[in-house]
Amino acid sequence: MASFLLELAWTGERLQRRLLLEEVAGTIAHLEPLGAGPAPAEAAVVSGLTLPGLNNVHSHAFHRALRGRTEEPAGADGDFWSWRAEMYRLAGRLEPTSYFQLARAAFAEMALAGITAVGEFHYLHHQVGGQPYPGPAMEEALVAAAAEAGVRLTLLDSCYLRPGFQGGPLEGPAMRFSDRDAMAWARRVDSFPEHPGLRRAAAIHSVRALDQAAIGIVAGWAREHSAPLHVHLSEQLAENLDCTAATGMTPTALLHSLQVLGPTTTAIHAIHLSPDDVRLLGETSTAVCVCPTTERDLGDGVCPAAALAAAGSPLCLGSDSNSMVDLFEEARAVELDQRLVTHRRGVHSATSLLRAATSAGAAALGWNAGELAVGRLADFVSLELETPRLAGPGERDLISRVIYGAAPSDIREVVVGGRPIVSGGRHLRLGAVGSLLTQVLSDLETP
Amino acid sequence: MASFLLELAWTGERLQRRLLLEEVAGTIAHLEPLGAGPAPAEAAVVSGLTLPGLNNVHSHAFHRALRGRTEEPAGADGDFWSWRAEMYRLAGRLEPTSYFQLARAAFAEMALAGITAVGEFHYLHHQVGGQPYPGPAMEEALVAAAAEAGVRLTLLDSCYLRPGFQGGPLEGPAMRFSDRDAMAWARRVDSFPEHPGLRRAAAIHSVRALDQAAIGIVAGWAREHSAPLHVHLSEQLAENLDCTAATGMTPTALLHSLQVLGPTTTAIHAIHLSPDDVRLLGETSTAVCVCPTTERDLGDGVCPAAALAAAGSPLCLGSDSNSMVDLFEEARAVELDQRLVTHRRGVHSATSLLRAATSAGAAALGWNAGELAVGRLADFVSLELETPRLAGPGERDLISRVIYGAAPSDIREVVVGGRPIVSGGRHLRLGAVGSLLTQVLSDLETP
Repeated sequence: MASFLLELAWTGERLQRRLLLEEVAGTIAHLEPLGAGPAPAEAAVVSGLTLPGLNNVHSHAFHRALRGRTEEPAGADGDFWSWRAEMYRLAGRLEPTSYFQLARAAFAEMALAGITAVGEFHYLHHQVGGQPYPGPAMEEALVAAAAEAGVRLTLLDSCYLRPGFQGGPLEGPAMRFSDRDAMAWARRVDSFPEHPGLRRAAAIHSVRALDQAAIGIVAGWAREHSAPLHVHLSEQLAENLDCTAATGMTPTALLHSLQVLGPTTTAIHAIHLSPDDVRLLGETSTAVCVCPTTERDLGDGVCPAAALAAAGSPLCLGSDSNSMVDLFEEARAVELDQRLVTHRRGVHSATSLLRAATSAGAAALGWNAGELAVGRLADFVSLELETPRLAGPGERDLISRVIYGAAPSDIREVVVGGRPIVSGGRHLRLGAVGSLLTQVLSDLETP
Repeated sequence: MASFLLELAWTGERLQRRLLLEEVAGTIAHLEPLGAGPAPAEAAVVSGLTLPGLNNVHSHAFHRALRGRTEEPAGADGDFWSWRAEMYRLAGRLEPTSYFQLARAAFAEMALAGITAVGEFHYLHHQVGGQPYPGPAMEEALVAAAAEAGVRLTLLDSCYLRPGFQGGPLEGPAMRFSDRDAMAWARRVDSFPEHPGLRRAAAIHSVRALDQAAIGIVAGWAREHSAPLHVHLSEQLAENLDCTAATGMTPTALLHSLQVLGPTTTAIHAIHLSPDDVRLLGETSTAVCVCPTTERDLGDGVCPAAALAAAGSPLCLGSDSNSMVDLFEEARAVELDQRLVTHRRGVHSATSLLRAATSAGAAALGWNAGELAVGRLADFVSLELETPRLAGPGERDLISRVIYGAAPSDIREVVVGGRPIVSGGRHLRLGAVGSLLTQVLSDLETP
């Protein structure tokens, strides 16, 4: 049990001054604007602006090791697929210990950036060559990493069985991804238990990596377990072309025909969509996770986020490849990247973008969080407001200033389930996260 | 005279360890790698990575007050022109004192971000209604602001005479921009002296704001004074359409016909270009200043920077509207925004992007700076490397990590002409820049 006096907070609905928040067993038990009244002596004062914790819906933590490593001119071959080849080389070298160390440092960077829950889209399951580890070693690495970093983990365990629609064996590092069949995937996922900081969830890697029967099994597992179901969708035009050639349907239409779409499903990227695809995603209330910094880095294209939101899809956000860990940049880029290609401005409101980073993200990850409200998890973060990036005239346009101006360096306090994990911009358990990252990234260089 | 031991520096050409830099009269007088040898006791140690100072080629300092203020949905009318109406409202309210305070705070934010020289594209010359001030009050405000912030100022004094190709009188706040004719503009610019921190320079606001005779006069003034000449070019399609309708030429072709293009000229934006425009700019070695954060914010479109560089145009960078002050983001966005629209990655090298932020920027602003080399101005900045954004394995891909990862929060030391202006991330003269900004932006709210 802990209590906090939030000097200025955005609850998810409105700005409030002097809000008393009391946490019991990790949950917000009481929330009350104090007006000019006195605060309880035991309440910890949180200055600046408090927001619900940020929810990072889509991450591949280990990609953090590629930051700045794949950007140099690659000639005419530079695209998503040449990047993937570099990512596979890294994937071929990680073991449970290095996977843990890298994920811990990446999750700690997220904590400093105000992220209180992360959806780790995990596909690096098995040993080099494809043999299973004796137990769920790579999964336990992620669970331990998130616990040390202090962030909630939704483990989106991804089923990945084939190299593409043409079938055939997986080769090289991709052999580590495969459980050989979807039932074996389900047995492995069932083999490790949930706990308060861990939400087990299912992921269909993509329509290219699973056949239709396997897609049905993974979706069925998610339904049975009332678990979130995520799927990479139409990030690249090549996926659309291959899917249409193999099935006569777009990836979205194929998923719809297999009853994968729906309000507990999140489509990741959703960039190359037909008008019918947008309608199907919206009508089924399927959430869409936009990952703009990665989509810009990989040259994927711009998600038609305004059309999706208008059709009925809740939008949420992911740092994906972690080439940048900054959910404020992800949020503003949802709007700004559309401006670049449409030459129009002002489609999404700042509060809708902040909800994408908070409540919609929490829903996609299966956490009862993302708002400051009684009964929700006590996950919140504070921003210093008198920084060069955020300075402005008081509360006027404050949420807009945050969305369009903020960076992780503005984050001061991060509280998860009532427990401070970052204070004064410093990670309480792990200390200097930059040094931790430097160490693990340097270790990866020395075989 | 001062001396510095740079533990690791990128000179503009290469990375060097333990570089001794000696400054005399603001200039680099001696530069020597020390190897394992001892450093002079008086040398100030600069840790992290030292870079040449960043040159911000295109700024409208007063637009800083619009950050986060124009982003909310504006309905179907939201575009560059609706944004400009809001900017004009602000322009109608500033006086020399508030212009100074706002510019000082904006330039101080730039200093913290590692910017050692700024090109201020200045058009707010006269009193409300258009009457001249008794002296060059608004220009002196900018000069004093840059001096207090510690950054070099290239004052790109902009000639602005008409509302568009159709002619007619300027109205409202735009009356403050006009000198009535180009000769009066030249007399006003000649009325204030240069000094070591100030470079006077000329700007043609745009082909829509000056007739051809006036364009010739401004360009002639720049030639006579060997001063940089800048011009807003093809930021918006409407400018192209109006120019072609009025003159039968694209804005680029019109400027070429008036002998405005050339190696001392910088075209700002240069987004909506024909292949012939790209060729003309490249053949004449006209520099192009890309302002990606503003161009994304305003929905301008994506500059064809790769084609321009290939054609022969040096690229440089500007923070323009100061909706963000981060030349690292500007640099990476030159590459990343092209990826969004071309779906290819890896066109510009990281070092070429860093040169855009340093040496090419200095050239466009008329400063003998932007490299660590004997005879250049002693302007340099240091980045802490073990931060969450920049952490990586030693020197491998270091410049790429800086371009794709760095933010102003990574800047530690800023030295201009051998004189420290920022140390440990703090502005030595002005102290808490966030508070300074908050104060001036709040004052602007209370008429």
